[in-house]
Amino acid sequence: MAVYTEVSDEELAGFVTEYDIGAVTSCKGIAEGVENSNYLLRTERGTYILTLYEKRVKPEDLPFFLGFMEHLARNGIACPTPLHARDGKALRVLCGRPAAIVTFLDGMWPRQVTPMHCRLLGEAMARMHLAGAGFALERVNALSLPGWRPLAEACLPRAGEVAADLAPLIRDELDFLGTRWPAGLPAGVIHADLFPDNVFFLGDRVSGIIDFYFACNDAFAYELAICLNAWCFERDGDFNATKALLMLQAYRAVRPISAEETAALPILARGSALRFLLTRLYDWLNHPAGAFVKPKDPLEYARKLRFHRRVPGPGAYGI
Amino acid sequence: MAVYTEVSDEELAGFVTEYDIGAVTSCKGIAEGVENSNYLLRTERGTYILTLYEKRVKPEDLPFFLGFMEHLARNGIACPTPLHARDGKALRVLCGRPAAIVTFLDGMWPRQVTPMHCRLLGEAMARMHLAGAGFALERVNALSLPGWRPLAEACLPRAGEVAADLAPLIRDELDFLGTRWPAGLPAGVIHADLFPDNVFFLGDRVSGIIDFYFACNDAFAYELAICLNAWCFERDGDFNATKALLMLQAYRAVRPISAEETAALPILARGSALRFLLTRLYDWLNHPAGAFVKPKDPLEYARKLRFHRRVPGPGAYGI
Repeated sequence: MAVYTEVSDEELAGFVTEYDIGAVTSCKGIAEGVENSNYLLRTERGTYILTLYEKRVKPEDLPFFLGFMEHLARNGIACPTPLHARDGKALRVLCGRPAAIVTFLDGMWPRQVTPMHCRLLGEAMARMHLAGAGFALERVNALSLPGWRPLAEACLPRAGEVAADLAPLIRDELDFLGTRWPAGLPAGVIHADLFPDNVFFLGDRVSGIIDFYFACNDAFAYELAICLNAWCFERDGDFNATKALLMLQAYRAVRPISAEETAALPILARGSALRFLLTRLYDWLNHPAGAFVKPKDPLEYARKLRFHRRVPGPGAYGI
Repeated sequence: MAVYTEVSDEELAGFVTEYDIGAVTSCKGIAEGVENSNYLLRTERGTYILTLYEKRVKPEDLPFFLGFMEHLARNGIACPTPLHARDGKALRVLCGRPAAIVTFLDGMWPRQVTPMHCRLLGEAMARMHLAGAGFALERVNALSLPGWRPLAEACLPRAGEVAADLAPLIRDELDFLGTRWPAGLPAGVIHADLFPDNVFFLGDRVSGIIDFYFACNDAFAYELAICLNAWCFERDGDFNATKALLMLQAYRAVRPISAEETAALPILARGSALRFLLTRLYDWLNHPAGAFVKPKDPLEYARKLRFHRRVPGPGAYGI
């Protein structure tokens, strides 16, 4: 929930004349997304999303993100497609910030994830992974193993403010993953933040995937591991193996999963849980008092991490 | 900026079937308005605003607010018009809260108020005051003189946390207004919160007035006084008499202002400044730590109050 930058009428009107979409008739800040300022923009020609990229997004990464969305859209994936202005540019500047207008997608993200959502997610994720092939740019996953240790160093001295047993858990997990993190798995561009609020559904179909601002090159199975964490736990903390099974089955029906990928799932799930534990912990410890955005609970991911540390093998995920 | 209540897909879909507007295709929380949860709702049939009334709005006042919007719309004022469900009801329940769907209005509220906006506001306000005639319900202004003293009592012990000279200013002003507050001025239903973010413009016309959740019966000139405060000061605190003159001229061209109303403007402007000073001060002192909504600066209204205490007469407002 966030609108950080207030766009004045004049600035907006001037910005929109660079595009071939008619005059602005309405522009409302959307209370979704925590990284950027998003506006629902209506013009004489249609409905769009206007995004102003706030400081958490590096401007130099934007050509990768916008280019990837365009690549996916061209290859049949329903995702926001950047509009090109009359000068050909999709990435422009508004109110001193990088800004883009993208197509509007119908659909709603599921507030209550059902097994059906997990099945549909699995299929859509696999189709997205395949459609990413041939994209020319590359982006290293800054939030994979090498990035976790500095993040942990920044958090560990104060982790005890959140829970007494958090620092030992993080230290132990970093040591473990440091020696066991898999390499050489099938890889490509992944979304890397495929949480329920980034996947839109309309009835019994996925109508769109949004928010590609963590997309990067990494193992496809790591995306599956992120989704095991983000989609397959109940609110009470219980893991739902049926949801996991449906997601993985639907995924492998589109893109087969190798034996190495299957075997790596528990450790990838541990790494993914640690990644969100660390970023949430960092935000929890460092969010300014009175900030608009309420930080997410890091302990949710500590619990998920402990679950994956206990699983005997990939069979626990229903596979 | 606020979405307090998360509506699940199922609850929303069920709610919308009560109306004749087709199925939901999209629903996004809007980062505007601080009192209620507002969603931009798109269905197969059109675009609407879905509002869930949060605890600051008294449910028993909603028939007045919704009825007044409907009355105004029927009398040619562009404002959100409540949709009636198949059972005839405009006020329903969603997620355990009172809820309504209203029509969507094109336009944008001015981030930078110009003299043109003030002129257009004056005309639209007068037309709204006239169109309110004949509305059957009544609602006392809970935030007029009798309501200010209890609000002040709740704030005064801690007013020094905000500014050292605030408590004496409030006490002195309450004493002054208590003996001089005018009675018997021409009255009717007023909006009572006609700030720039509640008035939409499209080019050189007012395209709509929104957010009638403070509407009440009171002197029309008190609404003018609220707008003197909300529209005619520059960001640096200077009063802009040109804006005030244009607003008042455009207003009186539609609804003449009596000599008593003109004479009362300085004291009404003081009362209006005190009203917003007190509610902002209360929110400032009582907003929960980590709340979504950043409270507005009470001192802005202390400065406006001091300006009105110094004016020699209504001529200061360009009249």
